[in-house]
Parts: sequence; structure tokens; C-alpha cells
Amino acid sequence: MKKDINKKRETDLPKNSRRRIDKKTVKKPVKTDRQSDKIQIIPLGGLDKIGMNITAIRYKDNIVVIDCGISFPESDMLGIDKVIPDITYLLENERMVKGFFITHGHEDHIGALPYILPQLPVPVYGTKLTLGLIKNKLEEANIADKARLREVAPGDRIRVGDLRVEFIKTNHSIPGACAIAVKTPIGTVFHTGDFKVDYTPLFGDAIDLQRIAEIGKEGVIALLSDSTNAMREGFTPSEIMVAKTFDRLFAENSKNRIIVATFSSNLDRVQQLINTAKKYNRKVILQGRSMENTISTAQELGYLKIPGGTMIGVDEMNDYPDSKLVFITTGSQGEAMAALSRMAGGEHKKVSIKPGDVIVFSSNPIPGNERAVTKVMNELAARGAKVVYQDTHVSGHACKQELELMYSLLKPVYAIPVHGEYRHLMANAAIAEELGVPKGRIFVLEAGDVLSLSAKAGKVIDKVTAREIYVDGLGVGDVGVSVIKDRQSLSASGFILVALVREKHSGMFIAGPEIITRGFVYVKESGDIMEEMRGVALDSIDYCYQKKIRETVKIRSVIKKDMEEYLWERFQRNPIVIPVILETNY
Amino acid sequence: MKKDINKKRETDLPKNSRRRIDKKTVKKPVKTDRQSDKIQIIPLGGLDKIGMNITAIRYKDNIVVIDCGISFPESDMLGIDKVIPDITYLLENERMVKGFFITHGHEDHIGALPYILPQLPVPVYGTKLTLGLIKNKLEEANIADKARLREVAPGDRIRVGDLRVEFIKTNHSIPGACAIAVKTPIGTVFHTGDFKVDYTPLFGDAIDLQRIAEIGKEGVIALLSDSTNAMREGFTPSEIMVAKTFDRLFAENSKNRIIVATFSSNLDRVQQLINTAKKYNRKVILQGRSMENTISTAQELGYLKIPGGTMIGVDEMNDYPDSKLVFITTGSQGEAMAALSRMAGGEHKKVSIKPGDVIVFSSNPIPGNERAVTKVMNELAARGAKVVYQDTHVSGHACKQELELMYSLLKPVYAIPVHGEYRHLMANAAIAEELGVPKGRIFVLEAGDVLSLSAKAGKVIDKVTAREIYVDGLGVGDVGVSVIKDRQSLSASGFILVALVREKHSGMFIAGPEIITRGFVYVKESGDIMEEMRGVALDSIDYCYQKKIRETVKIRSVIKKDMEEYLWERFQRNPIVIPVILETNY
Repeated sequence: MKKDINKKRETDLPKNSRRRIDKKTVKKPVKTDRQSDKIQIIPLGGLDKIGMNITAIRYKDNIVVIDCGISFPESDMLGIDKVIPDITYLLENERMVKGFFITHGHEDHIGALPYILPQLPVPVYGTKLTLGLIKNKLEEANIADKARLREVAPGDRIRVGDLRVEFIKTNHSIPGACAIAVKTPIGTVFHTGDFKVDYTPLFGDAIDLQRIAEIGKEGVIALLSDSTNAMREGFTPSEIMVAKTFDRLFAENSKNRIIVATFSSNLDRVQQLINTAKKYNRKVILQGRSMENTISTAQELGYLKIPGGTMIGVDEMNDYPDSKLVFITTGSQGEAMAALSRMAGGEHKKVSIKPGDVIVFSSNPIPGNERAVTKVMNELAARGAKVVYQDTHVSGHACKQELELMYSLLKPVYAIPVHGEYRHLMANAAIAEELGVPKGRIFVLEAGDVLSLSAKAGKVIDKVTAREIYVDGLGVGDVGVSVIKDRQSLSASGFILVALVREKHSGMFIAGPEIITRGFVYVKESGDIMEEMRGVALDSIDYCYQKKIRETVKIRSVIKKDMEEYLWERFQRNPIVIPVILETNY
Repeated sequence: MKKDINKKRETDLPKNSRRRIDKKTVKKPVKTDRQSDKIQIIPLGGLDKIGMNITAIRYKDNIVVIDCGISFPESDMLGIDKVIPDITYLLENERMVKGFFITHGHEDHIGALPYILPQLPVPVYGTKLTLGLIKNKLEEANIADKARLREVAPGDRIRVGDLRVEFIKTNHSIPGACAIAVKTPIGTVFHTGDFKVDYTPLFGDAIDLQRIAEIGKEGVIALLSDSTNAMREGFTPSEIMVAKTFDRLFAENSKNRIIVATFSSNLDRVQQLINTAKKYNRKVILQGRSMENTISTAQELGYLKIPGGTMIGVDEMNDYPDSKLVFITTGSQGEAMAALSRMAGGEHKKVSIKPGDVIVFSSNPIPGNERAVTKVMNELAARGAKVVYQDTHVSGHACKQELELMYSLLKPVYAIPVHGEYRHLMANAAIAEELGVPKGRIFVLEAGDVLSLSAKAGKVIDKVTAREIYVDGLGVGDVGVSVIKDRQSLSASGFILVALVREKHSGMFIAGPEIITRGFVYVKESGDIMEEMRGVALDSIDYCYQKKIRETVKIRSVIKKDMEEYLWERFQRNPIVIPVILETNY
């Protein structure tokens, strides 16, 4: 059952690719004569929030960029689909940028590439699956042809300018995940990417701790490490733990239909489910667009092994009894449009939940999604399904002990926690300190900080532009803070627009005031209120007439003020009030 | 340190008030000749969601109503402040309604009274603190004078029509919490209210298990019980657990300022903090309006013991070193306007967070608030504060074993889980079944269901109106589903209004099209887009002219359709499009 997909792939590569150790590398950077040399570390996004991972590492005229992800919008970023980084700094130094070096194929590490590459058409380096997932995205955006995608395998080293960049095998929740080491003349900058230490991974090799130790021996100036679980004691459990749960679940529910929701990007989990399905002689049906796309990419690239006849289409469902079916579906986060949510709401065209169905949530809710997830769980329960969510997931991120191991193997001069909320970064910083990195050599950075490191000292010396750029539909950056503020006001109380028509030649009002409103009150049942508001506007116009206020802009401001006062007094609400005075052409 | 406030209060009452057992009560209801008698249980809100607890219990022409709470809006109920129940059923049967019987003083049990009592001015029964908190609310709404508040103490029984209503002491997170037993000729309906079993409460008596068992012996036809923690194994820990944590925290941080955030309604917690402050010789400062109001009510009514000189105002803060101060503040749920959030954001007028401050979150995030809470925690950490949230809270609700105890003491004929999400109600139903209630006698109801129970059989026989009524500012019920839908659209993409002026006598357009938009794009930087939109509208008008379309309503629909198509094509967004054609007066 345990097919070592990664191993096979890697050993297909030239044997010596793992052993091209650069003998010229300075071993003890702190003792060389190049102590005056400097490295700059410039995170351009993320850090204190999950997502938008993108970090520039600069040595002289060489910049390598690690990852290029999006972040998902906060709940108050109304209408925003995703947030991408501002790459002004990279564009200003375009000539120096050697490429994007991608740790793994998750959205928060690759998602911004379709927006960024057209502006900055540099090569993109990553392992086979990572590039496959990137290629899918670029194809959707019709820009795949122009992209310069450079496939690497764990162990490969790429010489770019004065630097060497090495990819090192790690464990995470997706195959092909790597740490990245950037070797400079004054020492190596080591970026863990998203990682965990899984000594017994179900598929592929364990993290390459030997090579990591070797790099540590050679001299690491800075370690940028994954802080996600830095507040959790101990060691993240192996994926094997989940395998045991699935085995038990399939055995216990041998008569029922099983539906498992997980991230499409959690390929190890999907492989595991396919294997368990095979073992228990069940057919697998995929549900959800991203699930189908990712699985098909992974299968094409040889990352997923699907035994012949295991996978069937949803239309063949009725050819098999419930006891012979397992669905793998999107929607583990309660996303409204995902397949599982549609099943739970009775809106799925082909799959109806029925009593006896066993629904497994094989992921933890991302903070902010808890309510949506429990809503779906309740709907499923109301249809008589059994909902299971315990012991069905392990994290893909390192806990405290794993970070301790990483610090111990690499013994960096400087520690730079990345990937986590502020409190996670702080927890990682505390671990670094316990492991012997002096407090003054630990940097919790903000996006845009330019951290300059020499063998002797480190300091934030500058701040570059690192705004968040909002993507809304096809619009990139055309929605900013002021538009979001309007959306917040509109969402709370709607708007009231007062329209008037003024004759140009006479200055007389010849139509209106007409009140147009949405999101304020139910207009059809509120005729009196509409009449009241018309009255308020008429009073404002009378007042302007009496006070001889004739300028449009002043009349508008009188109407706005009066109407806002009335609305607050009468309803204690603050809809956006928009007075509009249209002027005739003559 | 352990001051038994409740005990004192209760024993102030006539001694025999606990022992007025009604000898005429039918002991074995299932064996009487009144088997054809029926009780109706009609939940008018809540049940499958937290909040809006209100349940009518009817026997012949007598209706007693247990609780009258609000629920807090779901995240998609934009702009809604709270949700209150629809009491059409009670108004239609006004003559029969004997009163509201309130289990305890939390918002989801008392919050709707200010809206409901003016329509249904019946007496309100509750313990001293419960009524005190209700009175505060009624005073804010200027209707306290008219209210008929009837104070009871645990053990009291009130005869109303053919029924007797008894209040039984329980434990929860607020003093004065009671279960309510409604005694009918065919057996008792027992409603637990929100409860836990705390054998060692810090303040007041433990739950009156003896009396509960006695009521069980007398014959319980239906048990309505709190499902909140029905999915949790075991027993909810005693408040003493939290006391130990606080003691340790105060001892360990003897040099630092301590700031504790909790619910103002969690009076036991507040009392505990005051006592711990006294022990460690610290002054207490309250922060947040609801905290100050609730504490002052509780203190006036004798529910809180505040040693003289312990409490100081925030302006005296600077007279004491940090080591002598403890703040008790609102904001434990990350509420944007609460005192703690303002401190975290640097917007609090008097209190600035500084390195070394110890901030204790003494509550769990309510589902849906997780993100807001972690945001505040991150802001506090960024200011150098130490954030503590482990072992600083215990739930006020019974876990599985406590429910098992309740079923075993009461041995109800019918089980009706209340107070919880659907999956919690189902978990409670499963407990009832395990404890011997036959499946057919367990009812998971929906709001509005009329459950008719006789000694022989139970059945949902009818459905009464039980909508959710939205409160937005001063408006009650004037915002419905269609307005909320508009708010959702506005929040996602704003609106585009196309204004035109048409001359009445000629039918000619004499002004416009003018484009007015909010929440769509940043207009000042999008002049071209505004011009494009004007062009689209002009094309629509041309089209109407050529096709001889003259009716206003038709022209509007052409403009709307064209504009929506353009916007989707160009931006993949769906703002609300509102064409407005103003007609001149002549």
C-alpha cells in the first residue's frame, strides 16, 4: 500500500545532483574577511498574517524571491476575492531579480504569480508538482506560454549570479514541498517553507535532515522558519495517525456511504483515501472543481497512484450500492459554493445526503471559518447524516519541538520567524532564544522591512512599499480602502439618494426630490417613510431658498446634513446619504 | 475569601418558602384518569441556534412563557443589531398568557423583553438579580414604570390559573439562575434553563439536586434541557478550577499590571477577581459600559461583595504602581468597540498597553468571534503584552454526564433538547435515548412547532408563526430578507446608479446620463471607467430611440440589462444597477 512516489521521482534524476556540494562555500562565515558584506532580507507581504508569502533575499546585485502567494481577504474586506503583494520594490530593481523560487504549490505561496509574472517575467523555479499547479493557474489566465518555468528536484542547486539556491526535501501536506537555502559568500540564508518533520510519511521520503544538518555545519547566517504551530508544544503527529482513523472508519461503517471533505491540495490525504477505498473495495468519486483539477494534474505528473477501476464518475454512482462508494469532496471549510455545502443544503444536482451517510471532515477550520463549518455540519446532521471530525486530520506545520530540531541542526546566526500571526511569530522568536540565538539577533519583521545582515550585526535599515493590493473580480488594485469603507457603510445600512433636477437657465428645481434607496428599509411597506424623507429634502430646499443658498455644492451639503440628522434621530442608523442635483442642458 | 452571597440572600426569605409542597399534585400522572389531557410545548425561537430562548407551555387555557431572549445576528445579517422572536401566537392568545418566567439574566433569555412587553404587558417572574438586569433594560427603553416585575426566590412556587410554576436553584455563570418546573395535572414540565452542576461553587449554593429528584419522583412528563455541551464528554469543571489559575497568575506576575477581560454578565468570575485582587492587595478598575452597569446593579442588589477601598476609578490609576492594579474589562470576544479592543488598538483614552502588561482572556470565543479575538490578541502581543488564555475559563453549561444525571433524577416521559445548534440537540437526544427515553418520545423541535403531549403519546400537531424579527437601530421588523439581500450585494460590489431627466411634455431626455456610484471602484482614479459607463448608458438610450421604446419602465430595464452585461464582461462583478428616470413637472 505504501507507494513511495516521491522517492521514485527523485531517484530518476542524475545521481550526483544530490552531491554537488560547492567546495568553495565559505564554511565559517563569521570568521571570513568578508564580514563587511551584507545580505538584505525583505519580506514583501504576509508575516503577521497567514498568506501572501513573498520574501526577497538580496546580496549585492542579486535578488532571489522566495514564493509569491496570495492571502485570503479578512472578513471586513467586503467583496474582495484575494489580496496580492505589492512588488514595487522588485520592479524598481527588476534587473537584479533572478527569479521566483517556490517552496510548494499552495495558494498562499503560488497564487499571486498570474498577477505578478506579466509585470516581472523572470524564471520560476519549483519541483514538478509545484510547477504543474502553477501552470494550471497560468493557463487559466492565458499566460502559460510566456512563463519560464524551471523544474528542479530536491537536492538540486541553481547558480544565479553570485548566489546558489538549493532545494531541500521537507514534509508538508502536499508532495514536492521544499525548504530553500540561498548560499551567499557570507553564509546561507535558510527558508524552511511550510514544513513538518514526518519520520514515517505515508508517501515519499522523510524530510532530508542529514542535508539540513550539513548545511548547518557549513554555516547558516539566517533561518526563516514556519511559525504556524510555534505555540503548540511537542511534535506534529505523522500522517500515519490519520491513516489509522480512516481504516477504522471504513471498517466500522461498512454498510454506509462515506463522504470525505478535505483540501484538494492535501494530496497525501487524497492518496491515502484512494488506497483505503481500494482496500475496502469501494469506488471513489471526486466532487468539486478544484478537487478534480488538482487530482488530474497530480495524476498526470505521477504524484498520485490511482489503481485502475477505482475512480468512477458521479453518473455511475447508481450502479453501486452505498457500501461500495466513497466521495472525496471540496467544502471542508464550509465554503458556500463548494460541493459539500451544496449537498448539505440540498442544492447539489446529483448527490442527496440521506440518513446513514457518514461525512468526514478531514481538515481543521481555518480561523474565521468555524461558523460556516458548523453550519454545514448542522445541515448534514439535520438530514440524518453522521458527522465525523475527530482524529481525521493532522497539521502540515511544525510544532515547537520540530522548530527546536531545526534551530539545533542549522544553528543560525540570526532567526527570522515567518508564516504566522504575530503571536505565532513571537512564540517562534521565544523558541529561537531558548535555543541560544541572542535576543538582538532575532527579528520579528513587518512587510516592507529591509533587514540588513552582516556576519557581525543585523538591523532594519529601511522600509519599502509593501501595501496589500485587492483583487475584486477582474479588477486588480481598483478597489482601495475608501471603496471598502463605502462597502462597509452600505452593508450596515444601505444608502439613500436624493435626486433633484435643476433648470440651468433659471436655477429652478423642476423635478424631484425623488428618494432612491437600497438596503435601508423595505420600501414597499414603508411608503410613509419615503414620504417623510421627501419632506425632509423639501425642507432643506426651502431653507436654501430662504437663505439664498444657490451653489449646487452647498445645497447638496445642506440636504446631506439634514437627512443624516433626521435618519439618526428617527432610526439610529447611518446609511450613506447621496444628494444628486442634475442640471438640464439649457 | 469564599463569601456565600446567594445563600445569605435566599435564607433571608421565609423559611417555609422552600417547603410549600403541593400535596394535591398528582404523583403518577401516567396512571390518572386525565390521560386525555394535553400539554402543548411551543418553542417560539432559538432551538437550533444559540439565542432567542422563548418557549410557551400551554395547558388548557393557561400559557406560561419561559424566557424571552434575543439572538445575535449571523454574519450574513448585515447591519442587524439583534434578532427578536415573533410573538404572534402569544398575541393571538393574549388572554391565556399568565406571564414570562425567566430562568436567568443573560441577553439570550431576557433581551427581547423591552420589545415584547409593550405589546404583551403580562407579569415577569424572576429572581432578584434577573429582575434587576431586566429593569435596567426597561429603564433604557423608558418602559420600566409599566412593567409588572414579580420577584421570586429559588424554591418559590407561583400559582397561575391551573398551573403551578416553581423556581429551582441551579448553577450557571450568573447568580440567580434557576430551572423552572411547570406543574400540570398530568405531570410536570421541567425546563433546566442554562445550567451546570457545580458541587463546589465559589459563591452561593450548589444546584438543588434534592428538590430536582423530588420533582422527578412526583412525575415529570417532559424535560427540556440545555444542549450546549451535550457533545462534550464528562463533567464541566467547577469554577474553583479558574480560581486556582487566577491565584497562580497573580502570584507569578506580582510586578505587572493585570488586565482581565470577561463577560460583564459572568458575575461569579468578577467576584472571584475582586477577591483575588483583595488578597494580593491590588486595586480594581472596571472598564466598559456594560461592565460598569452590570456590576453596579449586582452590587446594589447584594450579589457582589466589594470590600471597601478595593474599587478605584480609572483616573486614580496613576496613584498606584502597576503591581497594585488589576483591570476588569469588556472585550473578551474581540468586539470592535469594547474597552480591551480600544486598548489593543491604541485608541483607549486612558489606558495604554505597555510591555510587561499581562492580559487574561477569561472566556472562550463564541463561535464566529475567533478571528476578532485573535486579532486583538495579536495587537496586544505587538505592544509587548503577555496574553494568557489557558485554564482561565470554565463553561457555564452541563456536559454529557451532567445531562445524564438530570435525566436520571427526573426520569421524564418525554425529552425535548433545547439551547444548542442542531448537532448539540441531536447529541442531547442521543443521551436521552441512552438513559431510557424511547426514541419516539424524544422530540427535536423547530421554532413554531406545536408539540402536543398526553401521558400516552406525543406529536407535533401544528406550526405557528415563529419568524425572526430583525432589529436595526430603532427599527424593529422594517428590515427583512430583501433588504438584507440588497445589503449583501452592496457589500460585495456597491452600486451604480444611472440618472436621466426626461421632459414630461416632449418625452425628450434633457439631462444625464449621470453615473453615481459607491463601493464599486475608486471614482477619483477611474475617470475613464465613468466615461465608459456613460457611453454604455447612452448606447442604451440610442437603442430605445431606434426601437421606439418609450415607456419609462422599459427604458429602465434596457439600461439595467446593458449595464449589467458590460460590468460583468469588463470586471466580473455584479454591483446593483439602478436606472433612475426623473420626469420634469411639465
